[in-house]
Amino acid sequence: MIEKFRTLEYKDNKVLLIDQRILPVEFKIYECKDYKDIEFAIREMVVRGAPAIGATAAYGVFLAYKELKNNEESFKKACEFISLARPTAINLKWAVDRMLAFYEKSKHKENCEKLLLNLAKEIQEEDLQSNIQMGKNGLAVVPQNATILTHCNAGALATAGWGTAIGVIKTAFYANKNIFVYADETRPRLQGARLTAWELTQAKIPSKLIPDSAAATLIRDGKIDLVILGADRIAKNGDVCNKLGTFALSVICKHYGVPFYVAAPISTIDFTIPDGSYIPIEERTADEVRFIDGVQIAPLEMDVYNPSFDVTPHGNITAIITEKGIIYPPFKENIAKYKN
Amino acid sequence: MIEKFRTLEYKDNKVLLIDQRILPVEFKIYECKDYKDIEFAIREMVVRGAPAIGATAAYGVFLAYKELKNNEESFKKACEFISLARPTAINLKWAVDRMLAFYEKSKHKENCEKLLLNLAKEIQEEDLQSNIQMGKNGLAVVPQNATILTHCNAGALATAGWGTAIGVIKTAFYANKNIFVYADETRPRLQGARLTAWELTQAKIPSKLIPDSAAATLIRDGKIDLVILGADRIAKNGDVCNKLGTFALSVICKHYGVPFYVAAPISTIDFTIPDGSYIPIEERTADEVRFIDGVQIAPLEMDVYNPSFDVTPHGNITAIITEKGIIYPPFKENIAKYKN
Repeated sequence: MIEKFRTLEYKDNKVLLIDQRILPVEFKIYECKDYKDIEFAIREMVVRGAPAIGATAAYGVFLAYKELKNNEESFKKACEFISLARPTAINLKWAVDRMLAFYEKSKHKENCEKLLLNLAKEIQEEDLQSNIQMGKNGLAVVPQNATILTHCNAGALATAGWGTAIGVIKTAFYANKNIFVYADETRPRLQGARLTAWELTQAKIPSKLIPDSAAATLIRDGKIDLVILGADRIAKNGDVCNKLGTFALSVICKHYGVPFYVAAPISTIDFTIPDGSYIPIEERTADEVRFIDGVQIAPLEMDVYNPSFDVTPHGNITAIITEKGIIYPPFKENIAKYKN
Repeated sequence: MIEKFRTLEYKDNKVLLIDQRILPVEFKIYECKDYKDIEFAIREMVVRGAPAIGATAAYGVFLAYKELKNNEESFKKACEFISLARPTAINLKWAVDRMLAFYEKSKHKENCEKLLLNLAKEIQEEDLQSNIQMGKNGLAVVPQNATILTHCNAGALATAGWGTAIGVIKTAFYANKNIFVYADETRPRLQGARLTAWELTQAKIPSKLIPDSAAATLIRDGKIDLVILGADRIAKNGDVCNKLGTFALSVICKHYGVPFYVAAPISTIDFTIPDGSYIPIEERTADEVRFIDGVQIAPLEMDVYNPSFDVTPHGNITAIITEKGIIYPPFKENIAKYKN
């Protein structure tokens, strides 16, 4: 049941990415020949989604090593360059750090290059397997005949495959739970409209796309049984940083008693920060709001505030679905158990 | 200080409307030669905003009379045709009914046509004057140095001029209250990005455009002192129907104790309905969400739910600013005082 497309793939010395900027209108592969291409692809959102960024960055470290193995200083600078491509998702730093720690152990080995490539592949494969397990774990929270709301894209395109939140949704769908999905379009980058809607139609899951603002009335009117969405970084106390719009949804859900689930791998937890206030929120350009695919929708002289993410306090979250199990409150205590 | 542009104007036997579908990229006048043009302009949102629709429809009744005065049955059918162009805003029905009631009194007079034109002009002028008065009344709720959030467009473009919510904002700005405005872009039609941003930059009011989902964090973080927005229909108990997204904002504001004001003329109150559940919510086409100015942003095979409005319960509303004064809770009792 795994999807036929590959969000990322290493082939013929290149990292091949689905260009997520132009879906669903075009399906094109973006080729990364070196670490600079990888950094560009992450920064410009050819690839996005915290776990997919992590796996892509791991290959970036490998490509940097391949190019710069005779100059350790340049190699490490290249790794830092990759890890700074976007500030919010912890998986990016997590993957680069993991590759670098392994490099320190392996750098005197003759086959270091091959070992780094193998680790990048392992990170990718681990993510896929952890999503499949996350989906199975998530089954427990999806009732029969559930209507599920999701936000942004936490699907196969946001990961090495299968997806986190959408992984749970697909697992429930294939388990014949008779589910229905509402997908928020997710302004300004419209990952819900472009990517989640594309994945849902590919998988033939009964679903409807809505403007983000339509969710509140559906929730109030009892038309949503649960919300499941992804995360870009989770603090030690369970505060969740995710795509802009997540926080508003969480307040509405809390107000109307609708369960609010976050699905994310353990690698999304940042064990170095006590709460969500420590998470840097990426602010993107004004033109991302003023234009849609080159079409102007606002006056050029109008200022814009365009944060990409927001922080949902742990008190608004019902549970966090991970590959190692479902984490319920009290989050601080229960998250600590997963620190290795 | 009244703006130089005219949202609607009767000139040379035609109703001239600013084509609000193409602002801010182009400023073009859309000419209505007959009542069918008027119905089209309302239905397709060449003109939008409850009070502007009302005034435009009044001219539509006049144009229908001019064309069909020898056939009363056809004339009345034409009036019904106009009043059904959009279902939610009560001002449309209100204006058509007012014109028709006057027609019944005047139909045997020789100068009936002229009298109907005069009444349409009067409805337009009344709306402008009521907005100016609403702005003055609203001053009482805007503190010095306030940061105000608004949603959709309740400005000069939504009315015969000056605006309701934006009218209050402009009045406060010109009264040197040192205000700052955040404008929600307001998907799917983007009236905030296209129209409110245009009006704010025209008036040089310090302001920023935000994706709708960014409002919640600003509200939580104490960066919004008050919300002011318009209304398309208000029930007898104070429930307010307004542009999709209003309800979600109201829940967030209530949760974080931020004042939530609605600015609308008394003609927006529907004294025939006890509460908001009686208000028909217009559902618009899927392509309004799947495309933006012809640019595809979602798979064509993806279903869409696209309600244009939502209902905010009166309990989430701090007060309703009208041309006759500010209505505070208890709304049922206090609104009843304005029934004539």
